[in-house]
Amino acid sequence: MDFSPSPRAAELAALVSAFVTDEIEPVHDAYHHDVAAARAAGEWAESPIMGELRAKARAQGLWNLFLPVGHDQPYAEKYGTHGGAGLSNSDYAPLAELMGRATFLAPYVFNCNAPDTGNMEVLLKYGTEEQKAAWLEPLLDGRIRSAFGMTEPGVASSDATNMAATAIVDGDEVVINGTKWFSTGVGHPDCKIMIFMGLSDPNADRHHRHTMVLVPLDSPGVTIERMLSTMNVYDEPVGHGEVTFTDVRVPASNILLGEGRAFEIAQGRLGPGRIHHCMRLLGQAEVALELAIKRGLSRTAFGKPLVKLGGNSERIADARIAIDQARLLVLSAAWKLDVGGPMNALSEVSQIKVIVPNVAQQVIDMAIQLHGAGGLSQDVPLSAMWTNARALRLADGPDEVHRGVVARLEIGKHL
Amino acid sequence: MDFSPSPRAAELAALVSAFVTDEIEPVHDAYHHDVAAARAAGEWAESPIMGELRAKARAQGLWNLFLPVGHDQPYAEKYGTHGGAGLSNSDYAPLAELMGRATFLAPYVFNCNAPDTGNMEVLLKYGTEEQKAAWLEPLLDGRIRSAFGMTEPGVASSDATNMAATAIVDGDEVVINGTKWFSTGVGHPDCKIMIFMGLSDPNADRHHRHTMVLVPLDSPGVTIERMLSTMNVYDEPVGHGEVTFTDVRVPASNILLGEGRAFEIAQGRLGPGRIHHCMRLLGQAEVALELAIKRGLSRTAFGKPLVKLGGNSERIADARIAIDQARLLVLSAAWKLDVGGPMNALSEVSQIKVIVPNVAQQVIDMAIQLHGAGGLSQDVPLSAMWTNARALRLADGPDEVHRGVVARLEIGKHL
Amino acid sequence: MDFSPSPRAAELAALVSAFVTDEIEPVHDAYHHDVAAARAAGEWAESPIMGELRAKARAQGLWNLFLPVGHDQPYAEKYGTHGGAGLSNSDYAPLAELMGRATFLAPYVFNCNAPDTGNMEVLLKYGTEEQKAAWLEPLLDGRIRSAFGMTEPGVASSDATNMAATAIVDGDEVVINGTKWFSTGVGHPDCKIMIFMGLSDPNADRHHRHTMVLVPLDSPGVTIERMLSTMNVYDEPVGHGEVTFTDVRVPASNILLGEGRAFEIAQGRLGPGRIHHCMRLLGQAEVALELAIKRGLSRTAFGKPLVKLGGNSERIADARIAIDQARLLVLSAAWKLDVGGPMNALSEVSQIKVIVPNVAQQVIDMAIQLHGAGGLSQDVPLSAMWTNARALRLADGPDEVHRGVVARLEIGKHL
Amino acid sequence: MDFSPSPRAAELAALVSAFVTDEIEPVHDAYHHDVAAARAAGEWAESPIMGELRAKARAQGLWNLFLPVGHDQPYAEKYGTHGGAGLSNSDYAPLAELMGRATFLAPYVFNCNAPDTGNMEVLLKYGTEEQKAAWLEPLLDGRIRSAFGMTEPGVASSDATNMAATAIVDGDEVVINGTKWFSTGVGHPDCKIMIFMGLSDPNADRHHRHTMVLVPLDSPGVTIERMLSTMNVYDEPVGHGEVTFTDVRVPASNILLGEGRAFEIAQGRLGPGRIHHCMRLLGQAEVALELAIKRGLSRTAFGKPLVKLGGNSERIADARIAIDQARLLVLSAAWKLDVGGPMNALSEVSQIKVIVPNVAQQVIDMAIQLHGAGGLSQDVPLSAMWTNARALRLADGPDEVHRGVVARLEIGKHL
Repeated sequence: MDFSPSPRAAELAALVSAFVTDEIEPVHDAYHHDVAAARAAGEWAESPIMGELRAKARAQGLWNLFLPVGHDQPYAEKYGTHGGAGLSNSDYAPLAELMGRATFLAPYVFNCNAPDTGNMEVLLKYGTEEQKAAWLEPLLDGRIRSAFGMTEPGVASSDATNMAATAIVDGDEVVINGTKWFSTGVGHPDCKIMIFMGLSDPNADRHHRHTMVLVPLDSPGVTIERMLSTMNVYDEPVGHGEVTFTDVRVPASNILLGEGRAFEIAQGRLGPGRIHHCMRLLGQAEVALELAIKRGLSRTAFGKPLVKLGGNSERIADARIAIDQARLLVLSAAWKLDVGGPMNALSEVSQIKVIVPNVAQQVIDMAIQLHGAGGLSQDVPLSAMWTNARALRLADGPDEVHRGVVARLEIGKHL
Repeated sequence: MDFSPSPRAAELAALVSAFVTDEIEPVHDAYHHDVAAARAAGEWAESPIMGELRAKARAQGLWNLFLPVGHDQPYAEKYGTHGGAGLSNSDYAPLAELMGRATFLAPYVFNCNAPDTGNMEVLLKYGTEEQKAAWLEPLLDGRIRSAFGMTEPGVASSDATNMAATAIVDGDEVVINGTKWFSTGVGHPDCKIMIFMGLSDPNADRHHRHTMVLVPLDSPGVTIERMLSTMNVYDEPVGHGEVTFTDVRVPASNILLGEGRAFEIAQGRLGPGRIHHCMRLLGQAEVALELAIKRGLSRTAFGKPLVKLGGNSERIADARIAIDQARLLVLSAAWKLDVGGPMNALSEVSQIKVIVPNVAQQVIDMAIQLHGAGGLSQDVPLSAMWTNARALRLADGPDEVHRGVVARLEIGKHL
Repeated sequence: MDFSPSPRAAELAALVSAFVTDEIEPVHDAYHHDVAAARAAGEWAESPIMGELRAKARAQGLWNLFLPVGHDQPYAEKYGTHGGAGLSNSDYAPLAELMGRATFLAPYVFNCNAPDTGNMEVLLKYGTEEQKAAWLEPLLDGRIRSAFGMTEPGVASSDATNMAATAIVDGDEVVINGTKWFSTGVGHPDCKIMIFMGLSDPNADRHHRHTMVLVPLDSPGVTIERMLSTMNVYDEPVGHGEVTFTDVRVPASNILLGEGRAFEIAQGRLGPGRIHHCMRLLGQAEVALELAIKRGLSRTAFGKPLVKLGGNSERIADARIAIDQARLLVLSAAWKLDVGGPMNALSEVSQIKVIVPNVAQQVIDMAIQLHGAGGLSQDVPLSAMWTNARALRLADGPDEVHRGVVARLEIGKHL
Repeated sequence: MDFSPSPRAAELAALVSAFVTDEIEPVHDAYHHDVAAARAAGEWAESPIMGELRAKARAQGLWNLFLPVGHDQPYAEKYGTHGGAGLSNSDYAPLAELMGRATFLAPYVFNCNAPDTGNMEVLLKYGTEEQKAAWLEPLLDGRIRSAFGMTEPGVASSDATNMAATAIVDGDEVVINGTKWFSTGVGHPDCKIMIFMGLSDPNADRHHRHTMVLVPLDSPGVTIERMLSTMNVYDEPVGHGEVTFTDVRVPASNILLGEGRAFEIAQGRLGPGRIHHCMRLLGQAEVALELAIKRGLSRTAFGKPLVKLGGNSERIADARIAIDQARLLVLSAAWKLDVGGPMNALSEVSQIKVIVPNVAQQVIDMAIQLHGAGGLSQDVPLSAMWTNARALRLADGPDEVHRGVVARLEIGKHL
């Protein structure tokens, strides 16, 4: 057992960390000011700061670092990934944590943000050459962004087989109908393509009824109806949209992997994505813990700094223990993915999806409490961080579904 | 022991409940639409719906129901309180719960909202005839609103002796300087007066250094600098403001009770207010539990309604148990206030201030989770309710301070 | 709403409290010494101290106080119940809490211990005159003790319909076969009778298959196989036994209420019993909290008394809040039982059965922790108290079953 | 990062696991029967089974496996350690978990039990050649056992500087006075020596007042006053004793390391010991989880196996997540000890000491609950396992002290 990072991971961590501290943090407020100003003017617009940061990051080779080893040639070399070869999940995970420290900017800066990363992975693994040329390369190149259409408003999407929007093959076309919501990213001006998951054959068995199709967002019949808030936040300019599809027609060549094979793709897609989400959340939790301690040292009540009052120090200890345990679990899941693939890490990936958002939520809540009323306000980033953690207890499968997976596999050992 | 409500309380509960259901709920969305539209246009404005609802409520005698028995004559009769005499805390508490079911409207509709209620109580108990005529009567009459200036941005306000803004007597005037924030209500166009708590004599003993002064918001030197969000919400048109005071001068006759007597007032002020807050939160928790069950019955996953899946039914049971226990504790605290005054209920009032916001927050969080992603969105009221509960873990004293009070009194029994 | 006790309850509380303090506590250690000495000598024997205490209690009319109003004439007068009439559940509940402070002695001293109380209630409500003369009167008179045979080793007894031991009517006899365990009280030399619940007609509907029969423990074919420990404790001389029944024959006149009517009896039997258990546990929790604070004040570490270290004071506050909430819930359940009978308090009785043992367990655990290693030892009563609370999370239905009842009733409101 | 065990650790794990399964488990009940029979006869005696198992284990080289690398030559070779060289903490940790599966036997069988392991480490690191010959060699050889005298009845021993028993140098002797309790192991007939920690110079600075001395238990003036229970369990034949020392005189050459250097020794002693304790507890937690699932699959209520009812499957998932996280944290702490010594793992060692006993306690409690009343009884090992976990929340420092260490180090990063 060796808990030290690989030399390549350690080197990249130093670069990413420096970039976050030296380049992103200083312009963080200006970026959000730009976006808020645009929105106040009735517009969802990207700040020019983003383009500048992306150019700088790419120039340093800090670009597409998520690209998974084994599927990356020749893309890693062509699209700037540092060193020209993909990283293992284990090696990338600590970088995701560092990006998570500036989670509302850094993943975009490094072209490592969801859902683009998952979509690029799908295209890498399952895309035809034509699909790759059309969508993967512009995504890797940072020219466009993408969305993923899965969750629907009318059904319990926690059971993915409930999905009712349709993708029916009609000759050499696919006809798309229905509504998706919480499609993250569709608010961004650069968002051009959605991977849409729809019901194609209701008579097939439960896990072969659905198909994934590439649907350009400018296709006739696609309408972004509105943007949805999560705990009062819209995450502009990215956003979470409700999108309707009315007799949308795309070529059958836009189907990914094959009709009825959506679940096959979905299963492979989510492992690394959950590692990324969880590590970013741990980056957030670390920031929250630091803020809590700094505040607790600088404010005094009843004659003592807050960290010395009542159970505050115990809560700080509990936060450290919870974060360290959760990180080790994510790193172990990443390692299991690396050595044995998604089927080797089924339980682990669900375990981290349960525990990490809960840990992050609790640590951030504790940090808010130590800040007093100001902790709730726009003056500190804790409310946005909390919202992000809370939303991730539902996104990519609610806690309850993942607990169910873990329980099923555990009980299965004794059947 | 008799857990049934008094006949008067039962009768009023029926009236308030019917008013909330028949009058308020049908216009709830329209009200919020008005306010949002105003804000989108750059304005914080009250909706005309509020005035109409208030007129109706007042016509039914459902007005100023919070007015505490014993201090209410002749106001109860004059300002419409049902039956012409104040209610005990025990009798009012269930009405506050019912108002809490529509918590962002009902308390205002019935002229029973914080901080006006607490301010009116202070004026009733400690105001001079002149002060009552100038401020209490317009408040009871619903012509103006008020704010309370206590929390400050630069210090840990959980220890109220930290308050640094000054209120210095200078001849027959008081000179006010400093900054208050999270002053709830200052965003409302009708808000005209603040009860300001400031340091008047730093050399006095810890609990006699501060003074309460009535400060009209249109006094020269008073500036509302900005509105503060709580978890991304601004609660317009009420709002929580940051207010600066620069050499503000008001007549010394605006002092309440006397120089250096702010803590004496504060101690008596908060008991009933905390009963109100807690009962309203329990109204919210009941709504959340109902929403959770209805959603859990109507959505199906893995072949079953959500309420039958995993631990969902246990969480529903736990919510019921937690709410019922918390309500009994609040009612018992109200009864102790009634029979023995604030000093008789010191521990109980702190106990409810700890437990109720936490219970409400957890029940609402559970309801969000049962709703899936939609639970986070603007389509259901749960995110606003959650924010309200979370904020009340800090407002009127953080959990930690109230736990400290309970512990001190408990340990004191054995000294 | 009036949270004060009735005058009769207040008067009795003073008497019971004084008796516990003045008579029971001084001989507590001597009593346990006697019992332990007997056991070391291979015997389960009652200490003579018990008889002396019972005589004194009875002489003061502190005897059979549990006797439920409405079913008690003429027994209350004849068998010493104070004042000659039964108490309501509300009035008895605070007395049970006081007895709980010396829970391993006081309930026996006052002839108010489980399962005798529940058995006497059953006989009062459902017994024939002959059954009452034979078993109720000696029980009320304190001449004998009794057991209740429900739980079985081979099935999940949490679902009472699983019970497999049989009670088959054969002419004018009933034939009993099978095994019961955790039959509390069978270790005591005075235990003479068991109310046995057995399967009498497997073809009847689920709730009419079982019958309750009075089985004298000296009937041929009844064997106490062994005594069972709970968390390493045997609770001698009372004990929890495993009892086998092999072709045991008793007259059919020993059937209670009628063949197939066991569930009807069971439903009514458990409401008051759960009130008693819960109040006694709250008495224990209060003792534990007092011990914790006294220890926390008297021991010093790192220069401070333990109560001032870290989160200890918060835990004391949390204990006070949890106990007070739980007590109010039990009192409210008792009141609902009094005003509307068992069907009026179904949810409440299950609610208290979930929450109170958990609260007691946690408070006692906290008290152990504050005592350090000594808290685990024979030098303080905390380990025995903890075991008692833990066992009550299973006895009379596990937490999970009662949560299920609460959830079912709650969800049922929306069906 | 590489989460796979080293080849040597993997090989040994297979051997230890087979030995536990094939040799220890079959005689587990017989062993406990022997011990209980002896105790019923008034004696604390070892079962002959222990000697037989130890001989077999030693013959396979499964002996003294805890011996730390770097301090072990020539002992590892001489005293049977497999392969003739010590194991790193990382390599030993998984073996400790396997031993923990049969925790009341296996550690003794492999001569890897506390407190002998810690005492042997102290002798290895700090003992003179004479001390090693006299006490280390017989311990390694399994001829004797040992105790550690630290905790005292009259003070809060969580603050070790409170220790009041004295060890005063008087010429070439040391004079020992005072009382120690919870001295584990003194009940065993083979226990011959105690490492005693006593106050030698009250005027020295806080961490140089105490001295460690080797005190043979047959020294005049040493009296084992009584054995202490932990949650009603005596752990015979090992036991936890209260030992008084009255003018006990031992040669000054029995001092370890030097006068006033007890804290220096204590600091180094506890790291590996806590790794061992925690890993053994995780072995217990795994057994409890297996028992819970097996029971939950085999028992049926309300028409379903228990694992499918309510929140049971969620609790199983939570147990798996908690165990896996805790294990990774322990392994990471072991690795940090290996690469940087005790000062490199101060926070980590305290972190695991907080989290692991709590996780084990909760998992075992869950398993008890799933077993119903039988889970509390002597028929399943869960009550003994629970007691062991509970006691370890106090032994080697209570949760609160270790949380304090973690908090202090965490806050220290920001000072």
